[in-house]
Amino acid sequence: MSVVTSTASGPASSSVALLTDHYELTMVQAARQAGTADRRSVFELFPRRLPEGRRYGVVAGVGRALDAIEAFRFEPAAIAALEGVVDPDMLEWLASYRFSGDVWGYAEGEAYFPYSPLLVVEGTFAEAVLLETVLLSIYNHDSAIASAASRMTLAAAGRPCIEMGSRRTHEQAAVAAARAAYVAGFDATSNLAARATHGVPSAGTAAHSFTLLHDSEADAFRAQVQSLGVGTTLLVDTYDVTEAVRLAVEVAGTGLGAVRLDSGDLGEIAREVRAQLDGLGATETRIVVTSDLDEHAIAALAAAPVDAYGVGTQLVTGSGHPTCGFVYKLVARESADGEMVSVAKKSKDKLSIGGRKYALRRRSSTGTAEAEVIGIGEPPEDDGDDRPLLVPLVARGEVVGRTTLDEARTRHRASLAELPRVVTMMSAGEAAIPTVHLDPR
Amino acid sequence: MSVVTSTASGPASSSVALLTDHYELTMVQAARQAGTADRRSVFELFPRRLPEGRRYGVVAGVGRALDAIEAFRFEPAAIAALEGVVDPDMLEWLASYRFSGDVWGYAEGEAYFPYSPLLVVEGTFAEAVLLETVLLSIYNHDSAIASAASRMTLAAAGRPCIEMGSRRTHEQAAVAAARAAYVAGFDATSNLAARATHGVPSAGTAAHSFTLLHDSEADAFRAQVQSLGVGTTLLVDTYDVTEAVRLAVEVAGTGLGAVRLDSGDLGEIAREVRAQLDGLGATETRIVVTSDLDEHAIAALAAAPVDAYGVGTQLVTGSGHPTCGFVYKLVARESADGEMVSVAKKSKDKLSIGGRKYALRRRSSTGTAEAEVIGIGEPPEDDGDDRPLLVPLVARGEVVGRTTLDEARTRHRASLAELPRVVTMMSAGEAAIPTVHLDPR
Repeated sequence: MSVVTSTASGPASSSVALLTDHYELTMVQAARQAGTADRRSVFELFPRRLPEGRRYGVVAGVGRALDAIEAFRFEPAAIAALEGVVDPDMLEWLASYRFSGDVWGYAEGEAYFPYSPLLVVEGTFAEAVLLETVLLSIYNHDSAIASAASRMTLAAAGRPCIEMGSRRTHEQAAVAAARAAYVAGFDATSNLAARATHGVPSAGTAAHSFTLLHDSEADAFRAQVQSLGVGTTLLVDTYDVTEAVRLAVEVAGTGLGAVRLDSGDLGEIAREVRAQLDGLGATETRIVVTSDLDEHAIAALAAAPVDAYGVGTQLVTGSGHPTCGFVYKLVARESADGEMVSVAKKSKDKLSIGGRKYALRRRSSTGTAEAEVIGIGEPPEDDGDDRPLLVPLVARGEVVGRTTLDEARTRHRASLAELPRVVTMMSAGEAAIPTVHLDPR
Repeated sequence: MSVVTSTASGPASSSVALLTDHYELTMVQAARQAGTADRRSVFELFPRRLPEGRRYGVVAGVGRALDAIEAFRFEPAAIAALEGVVDPDMLEWLASYRFSGDVWGYAEGEAYFPYSPLLVVEGTFAEAVLLETVLLSIYNHDSAIASAASRMTLAAAGRPCIEMGSRRTHEQAAVAAARAAYVAGFDATSNLAARATHGVPSAGTAAHSFTLLHDSEADAFRAQVQSLGVGTTLLVDTYDVTEAVRLAVEVAGTGLGAVRLDSGDLGEIAREVRAQLDGLGATETRIVVTSDLDEHAIAALAAAPVDAYGVGTQLVTGSGHPTCGFVYKLVARESADGEMVSVAKKSKDKLSIGGRKYALRRRSSTGTAEAEVIGIGEPPEDDGDDRPLLVPLVARGEVVGRTTLDEARTRHRASLAELPRVVTMMSAGEAAIPTVHLDPR
């Protein structure tokens, strides 16, 4: 459930299993009656393309997806809420549902490219199709945020990035966004639920309302320093920046932690503030900038004396690409005679490729990624330069692929380090490496 | 909490109060120590502008925001999670926190314009500032969706719109999006949690995977019709549309409920399918179209024989504007001598206007809206043509402004009907009515 709606809603709203499209349930009902629901099936979750102009994407949400698979049960309240959607026999089947199949996928933090099979879900049709909506929701959202965040941290070139976008997105999406940004290299979040739930370090400065609450800027600065120490970050653009910086050092001393700039020409003002701080002897006081930053604005500030970036709206909205367009498609299923057969929709404008995939990142002898190799059947023999991308996530219904967020962060750094240097360019371009579809061997 | 993360997280993650930025808590700690935390304060939530090219916006999320205010408590698990963020004295204060102030706001479903004071929150600084993040999250998300949904339902000109975007957005944002779309005139959602939690009617068709699961399209259609009845919607573009339509009517008879088209040139194909259905005698069989629709694509299909639109990605991402850019600003507060004084940040690029606002929709004698009138102090005398926009939502901490979703839908229709007809244009333009700032009287 969204806690926010908890008072307005019954316990059914706490069910992960209800985060599902109506038709998933009616399809299973029809398949059960037709005797096809238990056919062994393979679904794949993949992108048909990168967002326009992007050179790579970043997988995030894997850990949350594993939680969702584990929690995907139709409790009595959920069953009650589904009366009228499916028939009583189907409700009984749902009450005993749990996923008992296998899942492989790209590890959290990994880079992806067009047609990368990010998840391969194998089970009966009924059990695998029911996961479609929630898996797509999690992957489409979290990977969109991580893909934007990764470019921002690249643009920041080592300067810390702080996620501050909670207020610009759905209150629960905000928690997931903070987590995804952390996977892609952000250092901290403003979101306290992300701290409590996912262990993401939290941080914060002060708002203009805090300054305005007090009878003078000096009163506000004194109140903040007294309570939070000289290491705090003072917001210096409520009235006059120059006067505020002077006052900030007067109040906190030259040991002041940081000042924050939230408006105006950030690069120009940062240069003036840096000179002023240095002149006052506050040479260690850092400058934090915020105000509608995206990867391009961050890159444009590379030469400015900025020590940290606070990023909000553009982070939580995926910097122009708030969703990834991942799809979840049936690629193989058992036929009446028990054989597995490849299947795909015949559509001119929406290509899918039938058959269960493997995926390898092909690398040069010096370790630079050269291609995303995707094929059906057995992968080519490994000469040591191919890195397999699919790892076991769920085995016979048990989650086996859980990793920590720190492991995901490490993987993200390693995955980027392996890609051609073109990924550091913020301009629009093509995928950094081609996707190569190998014929079945 | 997000149920999805429930297994990975402790009970702290179920706290609405943690859906809050770190700095809200540290500011209150500092203000308490300075003796300013209990100063009477007025915060306002408002947009500085409409999304580029939009002629109006739609307020949504009001009911969810009231739920959040009611549930905003720091339970023991949340307090435990905040150790290290604020000091023990502040933790004790948080443990007894509840909002005891007053809130007025635009009713859910109402149209809004630049600087419309969508929420006016009055209380102590401490209690009012803590609500900032979660109120902005809910309003920024839900109103972005409703604003896009409203244009889509206008473009659909009476044809039903079904929300099908759950898979393209965060799994909990999906539930709120379905609710917001319903407020703005959508007829149904695919999202089962929105049905269970908010009572939004749910609906669904079938996916390509259902057809591909079966040994033939005929088997799939028979299975679906047998289980769900002839009133069901058959998906006819898995292989060949013409053959599928023939087969659909053969299997279901001329009483077939609907067919769905999900690819290709939808207008052209709809015309061919309509002719084919009519020729087969299935004159009442409806045509549902889906496939990356937005308000422009819907408008472009106005002349095509389409009976319903299924909208996904573009709905849940706000059709290019996934957030509203609402801000929450301190506009007045008590001074040391107990007087209320207007306050505002002095920033060149981010205008705020100090002082507590009233808001009226000024209408012509024939009832057409002419201006959004916003002022400070007492509103002008009402000659009967001004419609006051702020209604009581919370009084002394008690929610008093809850309405049903059906009431919000009715209000949305009435609010749009009152606006100049320019709002039905899908092209980019200016706000449909000007915002007029009246001087204090």
